[in-house]
Amino acid sequence: MRENIANLRPIWTDPGEGTVKVIDQRKLPHAFKVMDLETVDAVIYAIREMVVRGAPLIGVTGAYGVYIATANGGDRAKDDAWLAGVADRITAARPTAVNLAWAVNRTLAAVLSEKSVQNRINRAWREAGDITEEEAENSRRIGRHGLSLIMAAAEKKSGGPVNILTHCNAGALACVELGTATAPIYAAHDHGIPVHVWVDETRPLNQGSRLTAWELGRHGVPHTVITDNAGGHLMQHNMVDMVIVGTDRTTYTGDVANKIGTYLKALSARDNHVPFYVALPSSTFDWTISDGLTGIPIEARDPDEVRFAPSKPRIPDHLLVPENSPAANFAFDVTPARLVTAFITERGICQATETDIRRLFPDKRYLP
Amino acid sequence: MRENIANLRPIWTDPGEGTVKVIDQRKLPHAFKVMDLETVDAVIYAIREMVVRGAPLIGVTGAYGVYIATANGGDRAKDDAWLAGVADRITAARPTAVNLAWAVNRTLAAVLSEKSVQNRINRAWREAGDITEEEAENSRRIGRHGLSLIMAAAEKKSGGPVNILTHCNAGALACVELGTATAPIYAAHDHGIPVHVWVDETRPLNQGSRLTAWELGRHGVPHTVITDNAGGHLMQHNMVDMVIVGTDRTTYTGDVANKIGTYLKALSARDNHVPFYVALPSSTFDWTISDGLTGIPIEARDPDEVRFAPSKPRIPDHLLVPENSPAANFAFDVTPARLVTAFITERGICQATETDIRRLFPDKRYLP
Repeated sequence: MRENIANLRPIWTDPGEGTVKVIDQRKLPHAFKVMDLETVDAVIYAIREMVVRGAPLIGVTGAYGVYIATANGGDRAKDDAWLAGVADRITAARPTAVNLAWAVNRTLAAVLSEKSVQNRINRAWREAGDITEEEAENSRRIGRHGLSLIMAAAEKKSGGPVNILTHCNAGALACVELGTATAPIYAAHDHGIPVHVWVDETRPLNQGSRLTAWELGRHGVPHTVITDNAGGHLMQHNMVDMVIVGTDRTTYTGDVANKIGTYLKALSARDNHVPFYVALPSSTFDWTISDGLTGIPIEARDPDEVRFAPSKPRIPDHLLVPENSPAANFAFDVTPARLVTAFITERGICQATETDIRRLFPDKRYLP
Repeated sequence: MRENIANLRPIWTDPGEGTVKVIDQRKLPHAFKVMDLETVDAVIYAIREMVVRGAPLIGVTGAYGVYIATANGGDRAKDDAWLAGVADRITAARPTAVNLAWAVNRTLAAVLSEKSVQNRINRAWREAGDITEEEAENSRRIGRHGLSLIMAAAEKKSGGPVNILTHCNAGALACVELGTATAPIYAAHDHGIPVHVWVDETRPLNQGSRLTAWELGRHGVPHTVITDNAGGHLMQHNMVDMVIVGTDRTTYTGDVANKIGTYLKALSARDNHVPFYVALPSSTFDWTISDGLTGIPIEARDPDEVRFAPSKPRIPDHLLVPENSPAANFAFDVTPARLVTAFITERGICQATETDIRRLFPDKRYLP
């Protein structure tokens, strides 16, 4: 049953064809489908409809969107304003994850530094590829740094696996490989440290029970799916040794936007003296916003995602509420820095304070 | 669309036939089915499988279970030990709600105080009926006491409805009428105080999105269904004026067992200075347990309740997780007294401290 999930990337290219392919994550875990991204509209659709999701992955996908615009744009690819407009459209597909704007803007800037259409196409392809490989390397480094925390927890325990709770999917499927929150978990498992993961279901779209459970299972990592309601009880009864989550945008002051419900787990971790770690590459830091609660835009998605069960292929959508009951669907919340034990980044581990973040990223402060 | 939900009881009897009827709450909100409870096994099935649920309601149902045993037992109804054994079987159907044991034991004691079978049958019928009407009156009183809190919140606000968050269903469907957590809400709505209820979905069995939304909608109370993950975000953004929940068992020291996830909402309420109220009749207090976290038994239910979506009638169960992923299903958690702003009981409002609970219930302390 064991597969090396690190080899399974949710996005890849065919350099011969110049095409971009992604796993359609809406169909997991019950079907494995690949979608070709051939147009900018397809890229925007894939990001908005969550064919691809996860901050690093939508960044990479957006970067390839700029490549696709350039490659398919004909003469318009000479027009800086047109390219900037396309980049804005891609960036607007989802508001919360800062990686999308970061990767799109970086690829756009690279394109605009070239003159001829052919050079622009080549440059976009190269830049998107660079971002992809940098994010893969970031995940590997996050895994190595986070491994030390899990090893320390294992040493502190007198037997039994290290129990790690995670929310949503900050796994290989959210990144290029290995994931952010899952990278230390895969590293520990591969080093023979016994780990067990409590997988929050993560309503409404069930990225935990659908995606995290799927990729942990493929890699052979022991795990148990729980409702989003359960983590507090588990922490009260010493059944959680640490929480590790990803993030869609983290301010340089340490406030963490992540999938709705993360804040509740952080509160519970604090109340029960359980370490609460956030794993992220530097591309997820927002170097412009100081107050996450007021500054980070929180996406409100279609209320029908709450009103219906996540659909398994070929089973009709499933109404969970009375026909006339409305629903609200805020997709993210912000966990204040005070509740975060530490960040696990590609450069190492740091406290959730402006001082410590700046110490680790002196080159990036205040630069969008 | 408005119906007086107070007139809709989830359990009722036909005195002519001596039969007991309940709403099959598993079918709501998409179908309204009534089940006749004709045998003790049917009573146990109804409680265990959550045809009926909610602490006061399973108490009343258990009391009628003792009546059914007595009425159907023939000569065995003379046998005190046999009746006590049946009572134990009913009580064991679900472990967490203390009302079940309380109501069953009270009815059993009443039965055993009589000698002849016919007197025992009559006494069981009368005792179960008394418990039913007492619980209805308790809910009415809880509504009146809780109304004062909502009125005060309305006066403090400069316009707009009082936004109340609730978890699970502590409504008319969980009680005999009016509910516990919902009783003050119905009272406020009927007094013309604008209220709006955030209804936690309450995975895995969705008692919030299925039952609370259904009964609030029937009564015309404005409400919005949210995922269990959302409450923290809403509280951070001043979109919740108070939380009111029910409870399945509350210690005389103020620790509150309620549907899994309640503790997370209490933590968030505390972190955001939102009042967190627990509404309960005296039958839900446990006068024997001092530490809720270690003392209250937490039911672990079938993991398939987590692995599958709650089934709408005639749609096959719906697997939400990879086929081989296990799940855990703890049904309740305990909110420590320190996180509770106040209790709303039939005798009035009190603090979540042993001293204040004893002040309100001097006649009941330490008596199981």
